[in-house]
Amino acid sequence: MSNPRVAGAGVTKFGKHPERTGRDLFAQAGLEALDQSGVDPDDVEALFYGNFMGELAEHQGHQGPLMAEAIGLDVPATRFEAACASAGATIRAAVKELRNGEADVIVVGGAERMTNIGTAAATDALAIAADDLYEVRAGMTFPGAYALMARSYFEAYGGSREDLAHIAVKNHEHALVNDHAQIQKEITVEDALEAPTIASPLGLYDSCPITDGAAAAVLTSEAYAEEHGLDAPVAVTGTGQGGDNLALQDRAHFAQTPAADAAAEEAYADAGIGPGDVDVAEVHDCFTIAEVLAIESLGFYERGEGISAATDGETTRHGDLPVNLSGGLKAKGHPVGATGVAQLATIAWVLDGSHPRADAVADGRVGVCHNAGGTVASTTVHVLEVAE
Amino acid sequence: MSNPRVAGAGVTKFGKHPERTGRDLFAQAGLEALDQSGVDPDDVEALFYGNFMGELAEHQGHQGPLMAEAIGLDVPATRFEAACASAGATIRAAVKELRNGEADVIVVGGAERMTNIGTAAATDALAIAADDLYEVRAGMTFPGAYALMARSYFEAYGGSREDLAHIAVKNHEHALVNDHAQIQKEITVEDALEAPTIASPLGLYDSCPITDGAAAAVLTSEAYAEEHGLDAPVAVTGTGQGGDNLALQDRAHFAQTPAADAAAEEAYADAGIGPGDVDVAEVHDCFTIAEVLAIESLGFYERGEGISAATDGETTRHGDLPVNLSGGLKAKGHPVGATGVAQLATIAWVLDGSHPRADAVADGRVGVCHNAGGTVASTTVHVLEVAE
Repeated sequence: MSNPRVAGAGVTKFGKHPERTGRDLFAQAGLEALDQSGVDPDDVEALFYGNFMGELAEHQGHQGPLMAEAIGLDVPATRFEAACASAGATIRAAVKELRNGEADVIVVGGAERMTNIGTAAATDALAIAADDLYEVRAGMTFPGAYALMARSYFEAYGGSREDLAHIAVKNHEHALVNDHAQIQKEITVEDALEAPTIASPLGLYDSCPITDGAAAAVLTSEAYAEEHGLDAPVAVTGTGQGGDNLALQDRAHFAQTPAADAAAEEAYADAGIGPGDVDVAEVHDCFTIAEVLAIESLGFYERGEGISAATDGETTRHGDLPVNLSGGLKAKGHPVGATGVAQLATIAWVLDGSHPRADAVADGRVGVCHNAGGTVASTTVHVLEVAE
Repeated sequence: MSNPRVAGAGVTKFGKHPERTGRDLFAQAGLEALDQSGVDPDDVEALFYGNFMGELAEHQGHQGPLMAEAIGLDVPATRFEAACASAGATIRAAVKELRNGEADVIVVGGAERMTNIGTAAATDALAIAADDLYEVRAGMTFPGAYALMARSYFEAYGGSREDLAHIAVKNHEHALVNDHAQIQKEITVEDALEAPTIASPLGLYDSCPITDGAAAAVLTSEAYAEEHGLDAPVAVTGTGQGGDNLALQDRAHFAQTPAADAAAEEAYADAGIGPGDVDVAEVHDCFTIAEVLAIESLGFYERGEGISAATDGETTRHGDLPVNLSGGLKAKGHPVGATGVAQLATIAWVLDGSHPRADAVADGRVGVCHNAGGTVASTTVHVLEVAE
């Protein structure tokens, strides 16, 4: 089975863009991706587009064709929505079509406009990723949900707010050289511990910001990349997706993410690798505790051991397995529908040596992206490898 | 290439269900589909789910995993959104995966809850399928958009409100025996012409109602159906999708639907058939004029000739090519995210002889479903054939 290539990627500056629409943001990312790829836009056969809250933030659904037009493509375009894993779902669908010969060139990506409605409305809009009937009407928001998960983790396995603070410090430090990042500000463990509480035990620096932004990538079949002599050294070699009950109340554990376990298992099997083969990872740290759950579900750590990875320096850029070299959602920002493809772009750029933090894994051959929706009720995992 | 089979389908009563949530509706349709299919639910590998306005009508996004849980499935679940063609997009994705060996059993479907927010809010919510920046803010709603398309059609090709009334009369008559239909009421051409104007030249009976409802189907690989001895005589032999600019203002013609032309061309080529081979069709008649545009894009009629098809009796149940034996969106109702799969269910039941209008095409072997989003900015076309 041939493995699709990442021919190009584009990411906007993440942050507050009060003057820009979602389509304007996606146009930038999509056109950058096409330009970088060297692919003739007439060869693109489909757009798979991720968006989460366009109905609420921009009174705009049906964004597939809208975004195709925005980047000058006259192709079938479908929007995928899996909450914060929406863009990950676009990658998965494209990978399956490309390796099965259904298409040779597909643009994947996503965009989200969030800051225009304000933090309170954005928090309410994000809550539609939770179960409205059983969670949201009872007052649940995502900071609250992840606070429950953190508290459960501490009770089940130990760990502390200091450990979470080390994750924030790490991701802020990683983002310092990422010009796409929303937050480029070095912080200390003390800063994180002394920051305002958002939902105990999580504080301001445990939480990703509200973000406007877009990301896109051009994925091609292996045959197309070779025939057209594309500079596309990174292949997507594995895809996995897992699902879980939307409501936390229906879960056996609050401090485990079986949807991510399943996605990782499938992606590793698909790629024919194991967690020990991975050199670098971008994981869905919407809150610091989410990074812990992710690196455990990805098999990098046993249950209860992921919490100390940043504290021990293992997941920093100097560690054995750098996690979130982009700065993660924590510092890079989290424009929901774009995040999964921004992760893919980061890993592709780290593996091809063009990312400003690529020297952290100078000999890296294998990277993983973990993109989660809701309280990890949806997860996609993708394995990327240097193919040449 | 093997062709996926329709192993089972379930459709709720379409109409007003003030006491039922979207998940409740989908649970009924999904469980009926699973029950009818004879498939072991443990064999299901994914749920592809269509929904359009859940964010606005139920404050609920991320419905993929929610609906998987509602029908007892612990599988990856993704929501597809292509406005009113959302469910058609789920069929297309499933067909591609099943015929490529990515999976053996996938549940497709969708649900929509619309009546709970009232007609004015539902009309506003539907408008997010149009271009917010260039259409909706200028006052465009879908009745207005399709009225423009009807007026353009009359100017370009001729035809009259009487011709449209014949379409309404036909579809109302077809629905009389469809117990899933929202409207089971015989009307006359005079009734249609004398009904209140919605957006001139379209009147009340030119417009589909606001509807709550759900539809689901179990699709399997050919190999799975044969190995498990399923009673699944109908195969999906062709899939096509087309896209167009969201805003009418960006189109070359208001009275042509090139996205549907492209979807039909692709689906016919995929199935190795032509429009002359089709015995029966379900098309997206959100407004009567839309049925005209659909049967022209599907190649059943030349441009400008589809308008008189119902008037001449050719698309009635007594005609050579019955269209919308279910009653269509017009009389059956249009719970947006469910519609594409409800069309698939209708065609499968017509071809296997179990539909109450199956006698209209007693020797029918080939059916087509045409599912359109927005002002036909997204369209999927699927070809179904009797395989055994």
